Amino acid sequence: MSVPLSSKTVRDLRSIVGAAHVITDPDRLLAYESDGLTQYRAAPSAAVLPASSDEVARVVERLHGEGIAIVPRGAGTGLSGGALPSEGAVVLGTARMNRILEVDPDDRLAVVQPGVTNARLTEATRPFDLYYAPDPSSQSTCTLGGNVAENSGGPHCLKYGVTSRYVTGLTVVLAGGRVARLGGSGRVASGGLDLTGLFVGSEGCFGIATAIEVRLLPLPASVRTLLAIFDTMEAAGHAVTGIIGSGLMPAAVEIIDRATIEAVEASVFAAGYPKGVGAALVVEFDGTEAGLDADADRAERCCLEVGAREVRRARSEEERLGLWKGRKKAFGAMGRIAPDLLVQDATVPRTRLPHVLASITEIGKQYELRIANVFHAGDGNLHPNILFDRADPDELERVERASHEIMKLCVDAGGTITGEHGVGIDKRAYMGLVHNETELDMLRRVRGVFDADHLFNPGKVVPDAVETPAEPVGSERASAAHAEAGAP
Amino acid sequence: MSVPLSSKTVRDLRSIVGAAHVITDPDRLLAYESDGLTQYRAAPSAAVLPASSDEVARVVERLHGEGIAIVPRGAGTGLSGGALPSEGAVVLGTARMNRILEVDPDDRLAVVQPGVTNARLTEATRPFDLYYAPDPSSQSTCTLGGNVAENSGGPHCLKYGVTSRYVTGLTVVLAGGRVARLGGSGRVASGGLDLTGLFVGSEGCFGIATAIEVRLLPLPASVRTLLAIFDTMEAAGHAVTGIIGSGLMPAAVEIIDRATIEAVEASVFAAGYPKGVGAALVVEFDGTEAGLDADADRAERCCLEVGAREVRRARSEEERLGLWKGRKKAFGAMGRIAPDLLVQDATVPRTRLPHVLASITEIGKQYELRIANVFHAGDGNLHPNILFDRADPDELERVERASHEIMKLCVDAGGTITGEHGVGIDKRAYMGLVHNETELDMLRRVRGVFDADHLFNPGKVVPDAVETPAEPVGSERASAAHAEAGAP
Repeated sequence: MSVPLSSKTVRDLRSIVGAAHVITDPDRLLAYESDGLTQYRAAPSAAVLPASSDEVARVVERLHGEGIAIVPRGAGTGLSGGALPSEGAVVLGTARMNRILEVDPDDRLAVVQPGVTNARLTEATRPFDLYYAPDPSSQSTCTLGGNVAENSGGPHCLKYGVTSRYVTGLTVVLAGGRVARLGGSGRVASGGLDLTGLFVGSEGCFGIATAIEVRLLPLPASVRTLLAIFDTMEAAGHAVTGIIGSGLMPAAVEIIDRATIEAVEASVFAAGYPKGVGAALVVEFDGTEAGLDADADRAERCCLEVGAREVRRARSEEERLGLWKGRKKAFGAMGRIAPDLLVQDATVPRTRLPHVLASITEIGKQYELRIANVFHAGDGNLHPNILFDRADPDELERVERASHEIMKLCVDAGGTITGEHGVGIDKRAYMGLVHNETELDMLRRVRGVFDADHLFNPGKVVPDAVETPAEPVGSERASAAHAEAGAP
Repeated sequence: MSVPLSSKTVRDLRSIVGAAHVITDPDRLLAYESDGLTQYRAAPSAAVLPASSDEVARVVERLHGEGIAIVPRGAGTGLSGGALPSEGAVVLGTARMNRILEVDPDDRLAVVQPGVTNARLTEATRPFDLYYAPDPSSQSTCTLGGNVAENSGGPHCLKYGVTSRYVTGLTVVLAGGRVARLGGSGRVASGGLDLTGLFVGSEGCFGIATAIEVRLLPLPASVRTLLAIFDTMEAAGHAVTGIIGSGLMPAAVEIIDRATIEAVEASVFAAGYPKGVGAALVVEFDGTEAGLDADADRAERCCLEVGAREVRRARSEEERLGLWKGRKKAFGAMGRIAPDLLVQDATVPRTRLPHVLASITEIGKQYELRIANVFHAGDGNLHPNILFDRADPDELERVERASHEIMKLCVDAGGTITGEHGVGIDKRAYMGLVHNETELDMLRRVRGVFDADHLFNPGKVVPDAVETPAEPVGSERASAAHAEAGAP
């Protein structure tokens, strides 16, 4: 249930952003009740859509002055529930802050408002032979502000790294409406601590980025794309180990499993995979033309040596898009065969992938759930996707229990609970798996520096003290290093 | 003047680390009185050399329990005074924590103790065809712990990025001896905020990293190195713009100016530059063999087009080291022609380099100082080196005034006050040039989360409230973006 704002508050907000941009009508608020984490919904008391940093600061000052919490929202494509409204909160949407403020081709920088979509930035910089590297699967819709909040990744982050490697400066509105500039002019820190890097990935709990400066990269001159088809996931896993172990530096190494391929082939997105395929591997190289064929040849040999049934190579941009089709349309295809889809997100050391994938299959069987795997194999970032129907309470409970087992499995294998989707509300209960009380306390207190009263995105990311499990489970590697270093 | 520790404290410290590793003899403490910032000296009350994370935690617990401050120290090669003792403080040296704890070639990770030197890590991982990418000029001496504290860079950070891109996990001893693990297993954040990235570059003000996990890269299969000789610095600057603007991705683009070349040629390191040279440019490409010659050819054309007098290309590793010689030996050569050397550090947008370098020359003339420039031209990281004699108080004062003008010049050009050496004590007075009071307050409070009583490296990095100039000077770009975004 939403808590209505006082009419004076609504009037004040309207005077700041314009009457049309303060939404209180319950029907229109439906659009703000959920994000990409489809099993949860909650109604905000209002949604406010400011058009400038100044309006954001005044809205924040006004709402925080009354102790009203604010939930920042970009395109609402997040998969961990980061943009879900909390009780009584106002959603602050960035949809109207969609201007590209500056493109500087000489210094390879751009400054954008937070509501600019990821793909539009690359479109705008392409005439300068530049592009913005991080490429979440939702890049045609998701916003740079959301990417900053979640420190988003994407298929090509294997070679190029995630959002935090590209954000070089931020103008931020903090609690109470104060404004600060972090980094800028191509340097994350102007002197002192890297607060820019700290803000990236803070999931809306620190404040609102109202101007985002990012580094651009030169468009790769050329690209080579392979699609390798395997009878088993094990063989595909060995191919990945072989490719990475050979010293090659692919731009992307993506795997989709049998269940995903079947979903794709059964959908309108059918990509023409042969019947009975166990896994498909997409490998891409980019850079200057010379050398790319040699790299692609080596990767092809790695695939054939471990028994790839066939390896296709794109000869044109059209063929390239064809090879990527199964991967890019995987989520859409799954969405069409089940009412709900939980896109899980976790990481494991690359070498543990075969073990972990086999165990996820077992977990699926145990809980009678369909789990399809689509993942960034090159950097060990898993996306087990659980297909379900939230109208079935028993199935929903099995989804929660299977999720918990998958998280524990990944942590026990030396990995962690999120690779690129953030903690949001979905992973909050698992924070105790990877952090001890000292570390959780540190997270709480760092958050407190920016927002002592928890008026930005309350209830997200860091569990309250009472929620923390007493016995944190350490990762194998970190514990080992820790013990070897002689730490108490 | 050092303040002696009580005999009970000394006894306790000896029982933790062993009698031989607690230094209180003033003669032996001389070695801990200064770092690479040669114009300052201060005596610590003692130096303690623990051998393990456990010993570090117990030393910290013991000293902090008495309110005694701790100054962490690696190899003491820092150039901003970060390891300078403060009044009454104990230096905690990491020299005995020099073990490589783990090299994992499959996941391309290593875990080291903080006292391992930068170059030794690469030596240890070379048998696996891997290396550690950040390469400060002091890499044969400087330690990974120091690199983490200062977020160190180096010539090849143009392509590969600075320390923060490679540190994926830390075990840290915090105030009072508490221990926390940040990130690990290849992921900077296990969930929640990127505290690993925040710790990197915290200049010893948060605590002591006792185990450091870093990402390793495959050794580049091949390398091409060019040395281009120019009559003027302007021409060298245009060559840099041409190379970067052509979409090439060099691993390093370094310039040494006329004054530096003269110093090198007058020294035992003479590298055989022709007489009357205005600037020398070192450009390096690395990667897989194919394509490197084409890249080098293009870079050579960029140099010749803007009037390079000659371009030499290394045909062997020995020739490669020869081309790098002038650059690598620049600091040593300058050290031999003046008693003291202030290695300045600042950044400007790459496109502003010609303007800024000309202005630095003017500043040198105005203050009658010899300033030699050696710098990472590719990413706009300047190192104006001021040659002086600290025994001459008038000259020392001119050095301070010239430094201030250089800092202001760089900030006015859209740059900042440090690129890779940190703030330490040297840049503390300039923090107000790049941060407003809200931002300084944020830095102070984030530091306070980790060390509320300022018992780690007190007096460094963040100026006390009273020191802050009232009117901060904003950078051009950041201010512009800020204004366009409509911020107040």
